[in-house]
Amino acid sequence: MEPSEKIAVVQRYVEAFDKQDITIIKDMFAADAKVEDPVGTDIHDGIDAIVAFYENALSSGAKLRLTGACRCAGSAVAFPFQVVMGDNTIDIIDVFYFNDAGKVVDMKAYWGAENYS
Amino acid sequence: MEPSEKIAVVQRYVEAFDKQDITIIKDMFAADAKVEDPVGTDIHDGIDAIVAFYENALSSGAKLRLTGACRCAGSAVAFPFQVVMGDNTIDIIDVFYFNDAGKVVDMKAYWGAENYS
Repeated sequence: MEPSEKIAVVQRYVEAFDKQDITIIKDMFAADAKVEDPVGTDIHDGIDAIVAFYENALSSGAKLRLTGACRCAGSAVAFPFQVVMGDNTIDIIDVFYFNDAGKVVDMKAYWGAENYS
Repeated sequence: MEPSEKIAVVQRYVEAFDKQDITIIKDMFAADAKVEDPVGTDIHDGIDAIVAFYENALSSGAKLRLTGACRCAGSAVAFPFQVVMGDNTIDIIDVFYFNDAGKVVDMKAYWGAENYS
């Protein structure tokens, strides 16, 4: 999978929040994907659980703003961004791993209480 | 493990490069740690392989410059930084996972050709 293809998925992920469009989420994750957000909490296992998680996240009105370059390596991409909710932001790093079909099979989000501002 | 303790390890990692001090590396990684740098390449498995890898990296004269907040979550910390070598930089994201003794047991570095400047 080319870096440009991974970066396009990251951009569509941002767009999903911009447009509150759950169909983008449904399209980008594999049926057997796992989402851990933040790392250390219960995993959303499988597309149905993932869609339910993102329906809630998208409806919050939160927007995503990339704050640095996407780092592509192996079957993964890591990227730094902020979640913006009104005047509040959270600094986050997401890591996506892709399967051979170009779908995200594993997503981990790294953030904690120190990342609020 | 408190976020402040994880962040202190990240700062000591930067210091290891600043001072070309391999003893910091030996102290921060667990005996059974694994290092994948960049992700998708062969893993340096165990402290002896890791020390050999970092002896080479430190001797290159490369320095590390944090470019954003450390993100602490679960037993992990993720952080964005640049490797600086003369006029050249590489944008990287590292993820460290810690064991109960506060040692790094897993390190993954995400970067690729697009991250050179």
